[in-house]
Amino acid sequence: MNMPNEDTANTLMQRIAVLEQISESPDFLCRRFATAEHRRANDQVAEWMKAAGLTVQEDQIGNIIGRFEGIENDAPAIMMGSHLDTVVKAGKYDGMLGVLCALAAVEHFAKRGERLPFALEVVGFADEEGVRYHSTYLGSKAITGKLDVAELDRIDGEGISMRNALIQFGKDPEQLHTAKRQASDLRGFIEVHIEQGPVLERENLPVGVVTSIAGATRLAVQLHGEAGHAGTVPMHLRRDTLCAAAESICAIERICKADPELVGTVGRIDADPGASNVIPGHTTFTVDVRSPSDEKRLRAIDEIKHHILNAAASRGVEAQIEQPHAEPSIDCDADISRIMAEAVGNHCTSVQWIPSGAGHDTAAMLEMTPSGMLFVRCKGGISHHPDESIEAEDGAIAIKVLIETLQKLAQQ
Amino acid sequence: MNMPNEDTANTLMQRIAVLEQISESPDFLCRRFATAEHRRANDQVAEWMKAAGLTVQEDQIGNIIGRFEGIENDAPAIMMGSHLDTVVKAGKYDGMLGVLCALAAVEHFAKRGERLPFALEVVGFADEEGVRYHSTYLGSKAITGKLDVAELDRIDGEGISMRNALIQFGKDPEQLHTAKRQASDLRGFIEVHIEQGPVLERENLPVGVVTSIAGATRLAVQLHGEAGHAGTVPMHLRRDTLCAAAESICAIERICKADPELVGTVGRIDADPGASNVIPGHTTFTVDVRSPSDEKRLRAIDEIKHHILNAAASRGVEAQIEQPHAEPSIDCDADISRIMAEAVGNHCTSVQWIPSGAGHDTAAMLEMTPSGMLFVRCKGGISHHPDESIEAEDGAIAIKVLIETLQKLAQQ
Repeated sequence: MNMPNEDTANTLMQRIAVLEQISESPDFLCRRFATAEHRRANDQVAEWMKAAGLTVQEDQIGNIIGRFEGIENDAPAIMMGSHLDTVVKAGKYDGMLGVLCALAAVEHFAKRGERLPFALEVVGFADEEGVRYHSTYLGSKAITGKLDVAELDRIDGEGISMRNALIQFGKDPEQLHTAKRQASDLRGFIEVHIEQGPVLERENLPVGVVTSIAGATRLAVQLHGEAGHAGTVPMHLRRDTLCAAAESICAIERICKADPELVGTVGRIDADPGASNVIPGHTTFTVDVRSPSDEKRLRAIDEIKHHILNAAASRGVEAQIEQPHAEPSIDCDADISRIMAEAVGNHCTSVQWIPSGAGHDTAAMLEMTPSGMLFVRCKGGISHHPDESIEAEDGAIAIKVLIETLQKLAQQ
Repeated sequence: MNMPNEDTANTLMQRIAVLEQISESPDFLCRRFATAEHRRANDQVAEWMKAAGLTVQEDQIGNIIGRFEGIENDAPAIMMGSHLDTVVKAGKYDGMLGVLCALAAVEHFAKRGERLPFALEVVGFADEEGVRYHSTYLGSKAITGKLDVAELDRIDGEGISMRNALIQFGKDPEQLHTAKRQASDLRGFIEVHIEQGPVLERENLPVGVVTSIAGATRLAVQLHGEAGHAGTVPMHLRRDTLCAAAESICAIERICKADPELVGTVGRIDADPGASNVIPGHTTFTVDVRSPSDEKRLRAIDEIKHHILNAAASRGVEAQIEQPHAEPSIDCDADISRIMAEAVGNHCTSVQWIPSGAGHDTAAMLEMTPSGMLFVRCKGGISHHPDESIEAEDGAIAIKVLIETLQKLAQQ
């Protein structure tokens, strides 16, 4: 058992602090795909990789990859890492923590010259958040070969196509396909990530093992009723769209509360015309439902649609429900997860299994190679916010879990 | 019984069309207090009044008043009318209809040289909508002496004080108090107004008698919970402010639906940060409750506050409830209303009594003189909108009801 030590924790937090400084804005952290700051972050990570004795390559989508060969050269690799891009006004751990924990784990072996029966690779994915091109998993999908070249035609907010952004970034978009790795090149993938939720903190545990990446359905609901004077239209003659929305929101909460494997959220609502003395004649809202169980998610969505239509119909309100997004859930690899859980057991009073409600690069990697995910406790469950925070000791435990997982995999 | 005739209806609609053209915008009707368009509207109405043989005066707040003496000079007057200002993107009937019906009724007597035991006055109030100075009832309050001179210090959106606006309008703000009339000068006040609601249309009746101006309470609710990732925070650990708001809105609807004398509206809602994948950590909404019964309104408000606090507390959400506005209900004069109802009975299959959910100049006039109100059916209950619409015949019936009401009052 490797106990986390202060040096490991300090180095991790120092590197986090260095990457935090590489931002498009002086006021907050923002580092989007294929920007000058992405370039600087990749170069910084490459420098650390090289210093640790890794061979560094950057592929044609901008993934930065450091490799430490195994006992035999060109052996299949265990790849570890996460993404280096961020949201706007980001926290400094989302993504970066996974890259730097992976680097620290490989450094452990590289420093000792300890070769394993497989190569080790550290990856900093180019884009997971999709802020610049409203895309998903550009980096990991390029590696699994699931990235459609049509994506190159996407245009960012300043009118720059992804193709031109890549050229400016020093890449050759015509060679994008070369980023694809063969399944036989990899033995597995492991991602460390902050939990972005409150479970580990509540359970007083530093890390936990992810069971699956939840499936998600998003609905966009439009309700058309009739505006009217708040004082003059009797209740029974109203076609109040906000009341219909409110009944729907209560139903969504009730349905999702009834099953611990469901979460449902209405995050956006807009009631028009939006004056205190006018009955809202038009209301729109979003619905986001996620579950590790596709069956439960689909059943919940059916129930929710039914409730929305009923809440609308009983008020003479017309409802339109669109479904802009639906993605099935995907289970993490049982073998890797079990081995990680054994390692977690060395450092925690109990092993917490958590479904991931958020999407991650692991979801893309699972389509190609056995993959697992380790969550690190974060303060107050806060994420995508400058207040994102972890304890240095928890980061060090994650590194130790990675090292021990690799040692156990080496013994298989 | 005087049957409405086509001429009366045509003249009414022609005059409405003339006033509709006097607007601050070429694109829609907007005529705010003490603007050049207010001046033009007053001058136009004064011209019609003079042509009908009325003596015209404009008081120091800008109310335009035409007087037809009774059998004896300087007898107390029955005043009739409504306001000449409009909201932004207004309909052409709200306010104007009441001024022009009153004018038509007085024309009926003036044309015949038929003097009554009281004088008749037609008033076009200067400001009821309060768009320019966020005030209430500037015109009618100046007449009843309830207008505070401190209001002169109010500033409009362009930084012009009400004092300077009145000077530009040709008035002397120092003489504002001279607009006040003595209670003994008036025998009563009658206002014709579009219903701004759907009751008369549903009942297939052209006009109805107003029982009272509803009391109103407005609440401003702030809910403070915790934002979080829609995918990662389990339902039982959420502090979702929009769910608390939704439960409150359902309770408001339920409470107000349970009593035909209550209406309750949530017209504005804002959920922050407002992203589809983020739990709303902060939600604000308004509540508007009205009733002809103060007791019912106050009991409903107590119940609603209780529900909001419960909905918040059960979700670990903090609630702040402010009450920026509360006004008691005021009953229309029983005598005038009864006499109007008799006249209504001559033209309608039944007499519809309607509480007014909206505020009107009548509410201010009731503090000084016995007052009554007649509602005219409007299409779809639509008001404060260019689609505001009435049938010309219904306007003619309102004029006949005014005439017959005056005849009955003369016989008392």
